[in-house]
Amino acid sequence: MCAGRGLDALAARLAELRRLLDGDLGDIEREIAKVGLDGETPAHRSARHLLGLNGKRLRPICVALASHIGSGFNDAARTFAVAVELVHNATLLHDDVVDLGDRRRGADAARVIYGNAASIFGGDYLLLDALSKIQAVGMTDVLERVLLVIKEMVVAEALQLASRGRVRTSTSEYFQIVDGKTASLFRWAMFAGARAGGVNEPLCKALESFGTSLGVAFQLVDDVLDFAGDPEATGKALLTDLREGKMTYPLLLAMERDRELTPALEAHCASEDTAVEPELGRRIAQIMVEKRVVDDCLELASRLCGDAVRSIEPLPESPAKAALEGVAMSTPRRKR
Amino acid sequence: MCAGRGLDALAARLAELRRLLDGDLGDIEREIAKVGLDGETPAHRSARHLLGLNGKRLRPICVALASHIGSGFNDAARTFAVAVELVHNATLLHDDVVDLGDRRRGADAARVIYGNAASIFGGDYLLLDALSKIQAVGMTDVLERVLLVIKEMVVAEALQLASRGRVRTSTSEYFQIVDGKTASLFRWAMFAGARAGGVNEPLCKALESFGTSLGVAFQLVDDVLDFAGDPEATGKALLTDLREGKMTYPLLLAMERDRELTPALEAHCASEDTAVEPELGRRIAQIMVEKRVVDDCLELASRLCGDAVRSIEPLPESPAKAALEGVAMSTPRRKR
Repeated sequence: MCAGRGLDALAARLAELRRLLDGDLGDIEREIAKVGLDGETPAHRSARHLLGLNGKRLRPICVALASHIGSGFNDAARTFAVAVELVHNATLLHDDVVDLGDRRRGADAARVIYGNAASIFGGDYLLLDALSKIQAVGMTDVLERVLLVIKEMVVAEALQLASRGRVRTSTSEYFQIVDGKTASLFRWAMFAGARAGGVNEPLCKALESFGTSLGVAFQLVDDVLDFAGDPEATGKALLTDLREGKMTYPLLLAMERDRELTPALEAHCASEDTAVEPELGRRIAQIMVEKRVVDDCLELASRLCGDAVRSIEPLPESPAKAALEGVAMSTPRRKR
Repeated sequence: MCAGRGLDALAARLAELRRLLDGDLGDIEREIAKVGLDGETPAHRSARHLLGLNGKRLRPICVALASHIGSGFNDAARTFAVAVELVHNATLLHDDVVDLGDRRRGADAARVIYGNAASIFGGDYLLLDALSKIQAVGMTDVLERVLLVIKEMVVAEALQLASRGRVRTSTSEYFQIVDGKTASLFRWAMFAGARAGGVNEPLCKALESFGTSLGVAFQLVDDVLDFAGDPEATGKALLTDLREGKMTYPLLLAMERDRELTPALEAHCASEDTAVEPELGRRIAQIMVEKRVVDDCLELASRLCGDAVRSIEPLPESPAKAALEGVAMSTPRRKR
């Protein structure tokens, strides 16, 4: 009964979200569709290819909702919403080269179609385009913050790269990397939307906290889906992180609950071959279910989303606030 | 006699340059030495490795001299001088991954030591660090311009990538790429230095023209050194551009003067093997000398540097102006 009521409440909130953002999201998509049309190089095509795939646009949704907490979705909010998606896509284009990723959003990665070089320059292009757009709005603090955030993202990606294949890593390092590579951009999205909507300082801080918690939860679910997702829904193969030697939270928890997993993972990471042995894959899948690793990770994600909801309690009730709560509540349940 | 007097004049001007910029260059180097010290990832190390090698620092010199045309080298000028070097180094880190370059400034490329991924993130890091520094100065137009310039650089690199291996390319496309990938940053360096020094609008425009002409000449000499340079001095192997399928101006001129070269280059570019056949290499070297390709390219570079000098004629005489003339006059003669 209780779970049923929770789902009803969630469905109502997501319907609210769709009603509220319908026009905004259309505006954002029209702007995104114009990006990279000023050239026909493989770099431009790489950028357009990725942007044209069916992304979740969760970061632009954050910008739009934060703006509605204030005076509403205006030109500045639209620009920031487009820019945050461009920054996100820029990092994906670079990450796919770094990770030699082949699939993205259910399609071939841009680097597979246009080559690594085009993917690097395509990412550079999107990054600069995003920064020019943000700069043109003329809100100094929003620009200053995004420059710091992108640097944080790069440093976190570099840290992740450095700790690749190091099985005995710590939970604190995992959360440090997640804050830098994912949560920081969600935090900025909320900040930028709030500033565009003229939200006052304390409420802006509350929205930023929401972004941080939501971002960490979002990444945690992403990392769970790498072990327990449906590749049809996620658009990428299972065990991608493990193949890349990334020790994510589900894996850290699995090692804690089955001590024999650690040496097996060390053997995997030490081997030249990045493919995961079927036996190791089956064993991990078993631990994930039997030792309740997936359940506990999703519970942690739910708690983080509860934190997100609590951090915006000071906000007066409004359709935008309800929609933000809906986004947070749906995050631990997301399948893609 | 005349050439002798030219050399004396040049020597005097370069002595002036050293006297004028001695303290400034020390300041710039001290700031550059602090970059990337906030982390120990391979990305940070890649960035520091490249910055620590013996670069020419020509772009920072442009910033410093332009500032001396105005009120002199101040904090803003120092920041812009450091930033322009960081942007330049960021592009080198990405280019070496794109071109699979092994040597840079007489040492192993960062990607050889730390890997491609570290070189990509190292470039991203330097780019963001440069932009944060520029933003902190608070001159909106200088930041706006650098964002546009870096986008121009990326688009030009992407164009160059797209035309790689296309032997029948045009001189106009070559100069379009050179303007985007090289001259635009020299132009910005002059603009930023001038703005830092409070130079008035017409003189600022004159300095920007200087930067454009100098930048094109600089790239042209670079492209000549790829055929006729001393690898000990340049720090990179001969025929690197040709191996990468880049049709630079010396090659375009060589094809014009020896029609049989075109099919030979087409065969080279069509082959899987990027190495240049010794026979082809010898033939190109012969054409470069006997058909006076190198001489004529360097003459064109001299004319461009003459344009640079002429564009700053409206400036009142000053040690900084004399030093800029010295930089321009020495560019066609540079060996590294």
